[in-house]
Amino acid sequence: MSISKTLIRNAIFVTADAENSIVRGCMAIEGDRIAFLGETPPHPIEQYDRVIDGSGKLYLPGLVNTHCHAAMSLLRGYGDDLALQIWLEQKMWPMEAKFTSEDVYWGTSLSVLEMIKSGTTSFVDMYDHMDQVAEVVRQSGIRGVLTRGVIGLCPPDVQERKLQEAIRFARDWHGQADGRITTMMAPHAPYTCPPDYIERFVQAAHDLNLPIHTHMSETAREVEANVEQYGLRPVAHLEKLGVFTRPTLVAHGVHLTDEEIATLAKYDVRVSHNPGSNLKLASGVARVIDLMRAGVKVSLGTDSSASNNNLDMFEEMQLAALIHKGVSGDPVAVPARTALRMGTAAGAESIWLDGVGTLAAGNKADFIALDIDQPHFFPRTDLISHIVYSAGGQDVADVCVNGSWVMENRVCLTLDEERIKREFAARFEGLLAR
Amino acid sequence: MSISKTLIRNAIFVTADAENSIVRGCMAIEGDRIAFLGETPPHPIEQYDRVIDGSGKLYLPGLVNTHCHAAMSLLRGYGDDLALQIWLEQKMWPMEAKFTSEDVYWGTSLSVLEMIKSGTTSFVDMYDHMDQVAEVVRQSGIRGVLTRGVIGLCPPDVQERKLQEAIRFARDWHGQADGRITTMMAPHAPYTCPPDYIERFVQAAHDLNLPIHTHMSETAREVEANVEQYGLRPVAHLEKLGVFTRPTLVAHGVHLTDEEIATLAKYDVRVSHNPGSNLKLASGVARVIDLMRAGVKVSLGTDSSASNNNLDMFEEMQLAALIHKGVSGDPVAVPARTALRMGTAAGAESIWLDGVGTLAAGNKADFIALDIDQPHFFPRTDLISHIVYSAGGQDVADVCVNGSWVMENRVCLTLDEERIKREFAARFEGLLAR
Repeated sequence: MSISKTLIRNAIFVTADAENSIVRGCMAIEGDRIAFLGETPPHPIEQYDRVIDGSGKLYLPGLVNTHCHAAMSLLRGYGDDLALQIWLEQKMWPMEAKFTSEDVYWGTSLSVLEMIKSGTTSFVDMYDHMDQVAEVVRQSGIRGVLTRGVIGLCPPDVQERKLQEAIRFARDWHGQADGRITTMMAPHAPYTCPPDYIERFVQAAHDLNLPIHTHMSETAREVEANVEQYGLRPVAHLEKLGVFTRPTLVAHGVHLTDEEIATLAKYDVRVSHNPGSNLKLASGVARVIDLMRAGVKVSLGTDSSASNNNLDMFEEMQLAALIHKGVSGDPVAVPARTALRMGTAAGAESIWLDGVGTLAAGNKADFIALDIDQPHFFPRTDLISHIVYSAGGQDVADVCVNGSWVMENRVCLTLDEERIKREFAARFEGLLAR
Repeated sequence: MSISKTLIRNAIFVTADAENSIVRGCMAIEGDRIAFLGETPPHPIEQYDRVIDGSGKLYLPGLVNTHCHAAMSLLRGYGDDLALQIWLEQKMWPMEAKFTSEDVYWGTSLSVLEMIKSGTTSFVDMYDHMDQVAEVVRQSGIRGVLTRGVIGLCPPDVQERKLQEAIRFARDWHGQADGRITTMMAPHAPYTCPPDYIERFVQAAHDLNLPIHTHMSETAREVEANVEQYGLRPVAHLEKLGVFTRPTLVAHGVHLTDEEIATLAKYDVRVSHNPGSNLKLASGVARVIDLMRAGVKVSLGTDSSASNNNLDMFEEMQLAALIHKGVSGDPVAVPARTALRMGTAAGAESIWLDGVGTLAAGNKADFIALDIDQPHFFPRTDLISHIVYSAGGQDVADVCVNGSWVMENRVCLTLDEERIKREFAARFEGLLAR
């Protein structure tokens, strides 16, 4: 069978590469790769299986969400505007304890649908019932970096069972779905996993040759508690446990000292910045300017839609570009170009996806098209600025992942939207009734 | 001629009243007013000229944008991510100096189109060439509180001409377009108008019985300069000049002392909070929690799309709900219910619009419908939370102002979108060439 060849022409392409180049012309896709990006197509038009007119559209790499708990869409709007502990202890945890595999399947389906419709082509998911999540990723055509997030505050036999489950999941699914699924090992957080248990995850990650993902220093309170309990702040604590001997992605990293930032830089630990969630939960404002200045790779994540409350990565890019200016008083902090790369190229690098996150010949064909024939994209001044400061997820018209179209003209081709909304609503009603 | 009667049924209505009630059932519109809101329609179905099935839609009051310079859409993305003075002096001002009436007409047309498409039904506009702005408001069906913003750093004869122009505009247009247009007097800011000139605006506002709108305390630098030049901070300065003897709306109010907040409360001065613009220009974070605690009415504005960079009021509601939590560390600060009211009821009250900003029988029929049959509006937990934390302007399906439909199914019925985009693009090219 010959490889399918598609040509997009008359379009504008934002590459999100280091130079943030803008290319006017065409992009050719062959199989799962971008074969060409430039002014004139490499082959005569008639040699392409499909030729798409990209007029009025702006193409950019698919967005990369580096921290999510997709199934928690079931808890969107369930107990907002409450103190953190009340929200967690009285709202989130009792409901999550009731989640079945079916709930996770439909919760994740709705979230993946929402991600696709708002232009996300790769996401990190840390949750339970991960086989269901992987199944949704397989069906939907999206790219997933998946990990069973383990809370270790339980008896040794339960700890052991969970660890083995995490190992089994990571081994079974790594590289599946045409390589769209990769996996990580995820002790949930320093405050939810005893030190020796974290060390066992580090060992497993070494054995499987996988990265580690964990929550770290999200709230001031958890940092204080770490110091009280272990005599160390979280970064030194995780360093001591050997976590950073593995490639590591930490979520949040809001409360960090200069010394901790230097340690993260030294080990090339990547930080998933979750501005929407950090603001909504009043966790604070991460030291993103300092992290980036120190050379730490910072990407963006939505966290779950229970604390965001949507999965629109355009909002996270915009928040990242806005809040660090406002809080630092520096109007050139986190410019649009940086925010765009945080949501694309830096995201892909942060989760070890090769050939993803920028538009270039040879890269994976993971990209989206925005409908820019709308008032808020005029005039045609700075298109990257428009993407970050003016666009929203609803502007996404088409989505392609790994060379396959998963959305065209805002219709998801891989998932049954009506059925998902119906089943999801039923699962939510069931959770309330249980 | 009998008054037209419309019935919307099978719908959900968010009233945005003091109780933030949610009504399931129907709303009847007669002429320019809401005639009924409740479970069962007051008249038999066949007595209505039009019956609309509101299933899958969420109705709420139209959003109220209390600070904008609509024509500046022509400068969206023109010189972002620059230091404030470079942006103003090298980018904004030289281009604005070239603006003609035609530019303002098409710039405002695009902005009003964008506002309608993102659910704004009333807006404050402060700019030059205001007859053009009023003309766009008249044609578009939107509600406008309009004012000629005057910079008084000019010779006495020019000052006089501008003042007379502002007076003439305010007198001519107040109450026009079926009452959809009202006017204010607007000395641009304490730092751009000499004290005696501001006093003349106060006198004119008294003579015309109109409110005053001005920029105030947007940046720390301008507050310092005010103290250096006049020996007073801006609030005391404006108080001394008699501004607050008129109903007053100030934009920004970022840098305020406790004493200044108390003064604003004493005079019932209303503050238009512009979170997006304040963050992007690195002006800082307004003391919204303290302002509201002191009893100051706080509404929301986008400012211009040169500093935002769009006119989507859903973003402003979301930012208002997020940033004050994140910066204060209090997760219950500015809850969704408050943010919704800031964008609707408090907005209308802040600009002296009676019977606007809440859904209730007897009120003006200014409302919008969101398409909530989309993933990010599931599950049906807290609809107000969904509006503030999850929705965006693109979710708006229908817009009704003063009892007339200005948008249905995302098609603007009053303005020619294609022509506006075309003419706007040409005006921008012309500005660059001039």
